[in-house]
This record gives sequence, C-alpha cells and structure tokens, in this order.
Amino acid sequence: MVRLRPRYKVWFETEEGYVLGPGTFNLLKMIERKGSLRLAAESLGMSYRYAWGLLKKVERHIGRPILRTFKGGSHGGGGATLTEEGRWLLEEYSKILEAFSRISEEYEKTSKN
Amino acid sequence: MVRLRPRYKVWFETEEGYVLGPGTFNLLKMIERKGSLRLAAESLGMSYRYAWGLLKKVERHIGRPILRTFKGGSHGGGGATLTEEGRWLLEEYSKILEAFSRISEEYEKTSKN
Repeated sequence: MVRLRPRYKVWFETEEGYVLGPGTFNLLKMIERKGSLRLAAESLGMSYRYAWGLLKKVERHIGRPILRTFKGGSHGGGGATLTEEGRWLLEEYSKILEAFSRISEEYEKTSKN
Repeated sequence: MVRLRPRYKVWFETEEGYVLGPGTFNLLKMIERKGSLRLAAESLGMSYRYAWGLLKKVERHIGRPILRTFKGGSHGGGGATLTEEGRWLLEEYSKILEAFSRISEEYEKTSKN
C-alpha cells in the first residue's frame, strides 16, 4: 500500500462563526515577535491593510480588542502588542495545533501502510 | 472569554500529492452502503461524472483500483463495491477522523473559556 500522510487545517469558531485559523495565528505570533503590526505584516508578505482587517474581524467576533498599539517610545516609531485576549487566542490555537500535530505524527508512526 | 470551538478539515497525501479528503471519504462510505456508484453519487447530490472523477483521481494517485463494478446480478442493473484498497482508505480515513474528533471534544470539555 502507499504511504498516507495526514494533513489538516484547524480553525476556531464561536456561535457567531469563524474566529481565526492558521493565517491569523501566524500574524499574532509575528506581532509578538516583532512588536509591530507593520513589521509583522511585512515579514508575512501581507499588506498592512489586509493584516489589520484580519485582526478587526477577530475583534468583531469575540467582542474584545486583541491588539494594543502605542506611539513613540524610546526607539520611536511606536508599535503593537497583543492584549490579554490576543495572547489567550494565541495560546489556545497553539494547544489545539499541538494536539493535532501529535495525532498526525502518531498516525504516521503506527500505520502499517 | 468567548467559547472557542475547534473545527478542522483533514485529508491524506502521498509523496505525489493529495489523495482524499472529506468529499471522497463520504462517497466511499456511501458506495459501501448503497452498492452502487450511481446511487451513492445521487444521495450525495453529486453528478455521476463528478463522483467518477473523484475516484479516478484517487486511483491515479495510489496506483491501484479502489472501485470494482459489475453488471447484472439477481436484481439486475449491476453495481459497485470497493476493492481491498478502497476499504483500506476508508478505514484509515475513519481512524484519523476519529482521533481528530476526540481531540476536538476533549478541547471543548477541558478549556476553561
């Protein structure tokens, strides 16, 4: 038999519908790393406008801000961090992704194909 | 916090690429139930041609037939069953789907959101 590899896409919904999937997850991670929405969007090849839209959609669905922006600072130029809700989303998505990835690896190891 | 529900799509790939996902999985299940590709396609709202194409694509990717068709029989009209490879694919996809669904249910139970 051929060797089957499970592939998957996972996303979160609320009763209102879609909240976030891999694209927004990567954006949130990158905002934490770069400390700036503009730099995060850039390094993912997204336009700033598109990245902003992704975040606003999440905020509309969960009813809370997930991004906190600020101006200036000692290095100038301002930046952005995630709010508590934003970090919570990031952690929850990481958890489910890890669980799915474990299942997928176990399948590849144990399947006798 | 809002209540997050994980949703997912899972599919199989080989080194050659995509093999099957939820659509073809449902078709294979229905063929086993109905004993006919035509009836299976009908009950899923697919055209016969489209259903046939899905199966042929799988066969091209795994290099083995997954459908066995036959004519006539005591009730007339012929029918179709899955080959050993077809049943194997059905079982493997069921396994991975079950594992993912267990993870997803566990997440919903244990998450304190």
